[in-house]
Amino acid sequence: MQFDQKKIFDYIDAHKEEYIALLSRMCGQKSLAMTGEGIGEMFRIVTETFREYGLEMQVFETPGNPCVIAVKKGETEKTLGFYHHYDVMPVEPLSEWQSDPWTLTVRDGVMYARGVADNKGGLVSSLAATDAYLKVYGTLPCCVKFLIEGEEEIGSPNLGFFTKACGDALECDGIIFEGGDRNGKGSPLEITTGVKGLLYLELTAQGVRTDAHSSLAVIAPNAAWRLVQALGTIKDAEGNILVDGFYDDVLPLRQKDLDVLERDAFDEEATRKHLGIPAFNNGKTGKELLKDYHYAPTLNLAGLVSGYTGEGTKTVLPAKATAKIDIRLVPDMDPEKTAQRVRDHLAARGFGDIDVKVMTATKSYRSDPDAPFTDVMIRSARSFTGIEPKVSHSHPATMPFANLCADRRIPAGAVGCGTPHNNAHGPNEKYAIEDFLDDIKFRSVLIREMGEEK
Amino acid sequence: MQFDQKKIFDYIDAHKEEYIALLSRMCGQKSLAMTGEGIGEMFRIVTETFREYGLEMQVFETPGNPCVIAVKKGETEKTLGFYHHYDVMPVEPLSEWQSDPWTLTVRDGVMYARGVADNKGGLVSSLAATDAYLKVYGTLPCCVKFLIEGEEEIGSPNLGFFTKACGDALECDGIIFEGGDRNGKGSPLEITTGVKGLLYLELTAQGVRTDAHSSLAVIAPNAAWRLVQALGTIKDAEGNILVDGFYDDVLPLRQKDLDVLERDAFDEEATRKHLGIPAFNNGKTGKELLKDYHYAPTLNLAGLVSGYTGEGTKTVLPAKATAKIDIRLVPDMDPEKTAQRVRDHLAARGFGDIDVKVMTATKSYRSDPDAPFTDVMIRSARSFTGIEPKVSHSHPATMPFANLCADRRIPAGAVGCGTPHNNAHGPNEKYAIEDFLDDIKFRSVLIREMGEEK
Repeated sequence: MQFDQKKIFDYIDAHKEEYIALLSRMCGQKSLAMTGEGIGEMFRIVTETFREYGLEMQVFETPGNPCVIAVKKGETEKTLGFYHHYDVMPVEPLSEWQSDPWTLTVRDGVMYARGVADNKGGLVSSLAATDAYLKVYGTLPCCVKFLIEGEEEIGSPNLGFFTKACGDALECDGIIFEGGDRNGKGSPLEITTGVKGLLYLELTAQGVRTDAHSSLAVIAPNAAWRLVQALGTIKDAEGNILVDGFYDDVLPLRQKDLDVLERDAFDEEATRKHLGIPAFNNGKTGKELLKDYHYAPTLNLAGLVSGYTGEGTKTVLPAKATAKIDIRLVPDMDPEKTAQRVRDHLAARGFGDIDVKVMTATKSYRSDPDAPFTDVMIRSARSFTGIEPKVSHSHPATMPFANLCADRRIPAGAVGCGTPHNNAHGPNEKYAIEDFLDDIKFRSVLIREMGEEK
Repeated sequence: MQFDQKKIFDYIDAHKEEYIALLSRMCGQKSLAMTGEGIGEMFRIVTETFREYGLEMQVFETPGNPCVIAVKKGETEKTLGFYHHYDVMPVEPLSEWQSDPWTLTVRDGVMYARGVADNKGGLVSSLAATDAYLKVYGTLPCCVKFLIEGEEEIGSPNLGFFTKACGDALECDGIIFEGGDRNGKGSPLEITTGVKGLLYLELTAQGVRTDAHSSLAVIAPNAAWRLVQALGTIKDAEGNILVDGFYDDVLPLRQKDLDVLERDAFDEEATRKHLGIPAFNNGKTGKELLKDYHYAPTLNLAGLVSGYTGEGTKTVLPAKATAKIDIRLVPDMDPEKTAQRVRDHLAARGFGDIDVKVMTATKSYRSDPDAPFTDVMIRSARSFTGIEPKVSHSHPATMPFANLCADRRIPAGAVGCGTPHNNAHGPNEKYAIEDFLDDIKFRSVLIREMGEEK
């Protein structure tokens, strides 16, 4: 059967009220993984909706919020996965919202609500694409499989549990993850087939029992100095990470990983200006800069706090000092092993008293660059926009690709028609109706292209 | 005329209601140097009170709050100075006060109010001692001179201005400063004849324009790391201060400064336990510990703040990082010169981008150990308690001795019957009526002993 792009796009445009109403229903239900508020009700809405749209479901209880796999079989055995989550971030500060975060409100063609973009909008657009395809053609050209969890916004602590519980039910020829931005309509789509992992550590130094008068500083230990000196052994002024063995498990880059930098979406000059810096680290530019950005692990000091942090002066000897460190991991760095390396490194330098707590641990992931799924995404993007897409083998940020894909080496990707300026996690989260419809249309093309794979 | 200690002490006891009423009146008036609230009214109350008690006054306008010198001449030319201030600290958090901070309230023999101890109580006790002496004997054996400012709680920014404006009016044979504690009734009084100075610096590193996503950490500068690395050049893990020339102007200790350590009030074991530490820095004990405590300069990291400092995790590349550093100075370290040394030190190591801001600068001061005034204090303490007092030539903390005394090398001291647990600066500031009366009595002895000096 010939795929008539216009026919399916017209259907989507004609039924946009239905899809917006569905998104509105989902956004109307709180679903805060952080507190558990509304999670049960939201899960019921999700499963009811998928049932209404004719998908088969398999629910997986976890030690946390339940997950669900929703499947619609197609004409071929090829399976396109869509990863989504039904939990959302808290809405605070509420006073900064221009309309109720739990009521989808449209202003000037833009929908506003908590979760409208991240990720209820994505969930609905994937479902709407599947629905439109079915309505227009009666069948799907491939199997479409939704993999849905409810704890993404608290770091997906039970996604590994879900993955194990799934068994073969997880099998896909490729999984589209949430997110996927373009630099406005008319710009090329940006395809990511890998992500850095994230190890978030909290380092704490303890000195005297409670904050004391700073006149004691000459005779009693200072937790802030202790922490500063420990941190000083971890990274040098040139930005080199000095943790013993930190780079030992970093895989060498494949030639394709370097080649793909030619097709990167990164706008060097715009980013530099936006950040307000005269130059990037170590004066790097071009491919050398991109190589670091996509493929180098980081050890970022995300937060420091000790003693008096208010305005003006207070003469205090701090009892405690804390550093928050986020480490972006690349293959094949293991989060727990890396945390242990930090501990061992500190202990070997006499800083064994510094407590190192693992807050978050997510592995990195890189899809096989030769996987047909990458080509499915590229062909879909090209077909949808008429422009050659940008491609990255490793997004500098983190998504839970590895949790779902690592064991079975399932190719993963993120690509879509969103905008990085959607205020996800912040007040006035938004999703333009035009982008929403484009996302539905683009996903229908993805379904078609997956069906083309032999 | 023979000094009859019992007679004057009896007078003080008999008139305690009058003195408490006076303190109550002063505590009933807000006087916040930080906001200026009530400062004018408070100054009027102070000057009215001193006029009522028959002292001659000279008011000094400053760029900030006015100062006053109040004098009562005596039978000799010898002059005993009392330094006090009429401003107080803010009362927040108000909810933690058990009674209105602006109403002197007595519970179980203890007076509660903001300023009741720091320093309206001290001011009234010095005035009451002068009054009692006059009432019992008709004249004073020496001249008593009050030097009163209204900005101590904001770091006495105009005390130098006042000192210059005073000219010869400042001349004294010794000045008693505020404070002065004992370890409960029956303990020896603790005399301090010198203080460390205080240089408070704020060091700031700036990276990207505003906090950014930490995925950029590998290519964009991190202000927190920058600050940590700069701080790492300032102090080593053994606590050595590495700032170039930091110790250059430190005067060698006099034999008397070492000898006086034998008479120190510091309770090593109690302090160690209170701080909850296994040992003092570098395992020091005894005289070596006291030598550091009283005579070594410090470079204390009083605060650190950068990026995300809340609970849990946030992956942020911090735009700004700030360190609060308090440096306790010893003779002859100059605050401004020391600040410049920190700047030069950083610049010489490639950290010239770190902003170094001087927040507070107070010089250290040590009285001449052979000054007769020290003996006046020792004799008074011995006579009042019947026990040999403890003596320190350099208090590890800071009081503005130098501002008033440095130019004319006026001997200075702090000694009294207060308690370190008076909640000065905190909620429920207090002053036991017994301590208040003891302070008045002790000060009457000081007046007598100053009169004995030839």
